[in-house]
Amino acid sequence: MPDQHPRLCSIANSLAVVGERWSLLVLREVFFGVRRFDGIAAHTGASRSVLAIRLKKLVEHGILSKELYETHPPRYEYTPTEAGRALQPLLLALMEWGDHYVTEGEPPTAYRHDCGAVLHPRTVCGSCGEPLHSDSTHPLRIGGIPLPEAS
Amino acid sequence: MPDQHPRLCSIANSLAVVGERWSLLVLREVFFGVRRFDGIAAHTGASRSVLAIRLKKLVEHGILSKELYETHPPRYEYTPTEAGRALQPLLLALMEWGDHYVTEGEPPTAYRHDCGAVLHPRTVCGSCGEPLHSDSTHPLRIGGIPLPEAS
Repeated sequence: MPDQHPRLCSIANSLAVVGERWSLLVLREVFFGVRRFDGIAAHTGASRSVLAIRLKKLVEHGILSKELYETHPPRYEYTPTEAGRALQPLLLALMEWGDHYVTEGEPPTAYRHDCGAVLHPRTVCGSCGEPLHSDSTHPLRIGGIPLPEAS
Repeated sequence: MPDQHPRLCSIANSLAVVGERWSLLVLREVFFGVRRFDGIAAHTGASRSVLAIRLKKLVEHGILSKELYETHPPRYEYTPTEAGRALQPLLLALMEWGDHYVTEGEPPTAYRHDCGAVLHPRTVCGSCGEPLHSDSTHPLRIGGIPLPEAS
């Protein structure tokens, strides 16, 4: 019988903070070095009212920090915090997925990695370095509840 | 001067397909093996009307496939396609980020990897295997436009 409560889950918690489409596109721009309101608005296509709300939320949740760069009128630049920077690899992995499964034609954006190769991010086990597949991971507990087969 | 058009971008394209909070939570459930409407509704907390729309969209975009398991009345099970399965590592990486930066206390969900270690996903360069950092990736082109410093 299914729970009557949604699962406790860090995916859900993450999405509550950065799960809106515009929030991730704001982060994309900030990683590209576009850090001011007008530039972020132009490059994402977000309306100014939605963008203001998303930026405020990202600052409140400690994903972006906000610094005054002009006082009359007050204007701000947004830079990623450590928590924000930790999302960049995930955005790059999402871009790779989109290049492969959604976008038609050549990937619009490409990176070179420090090693010299054109970047194709991969998500691996942090311990052995093997790429993750749906059948190589086995839940020990889900939503705070240990699984019988894992005990 | 900023563009007057949003960037061409596979992140944006990906988010147009799977960027809604409930869509990613539906995928989480399907990866846990919960494949029927009532179970997905109970475990995510999505309303039935929103869930029906999200499932339809995920099927239309080839992320989930839909199979009849009961004919009177017709009922369906949802299973991930290849494109859907390719999103699982990204969801695991998002979970890891949430465990670290959002969730308080012990991570609600944990996995063991095939190698025996408790899973901590990492996003790396597919060529050299080094973890990605914000200063180890260098754009060659952005939104279809080659960068001058890269040519």
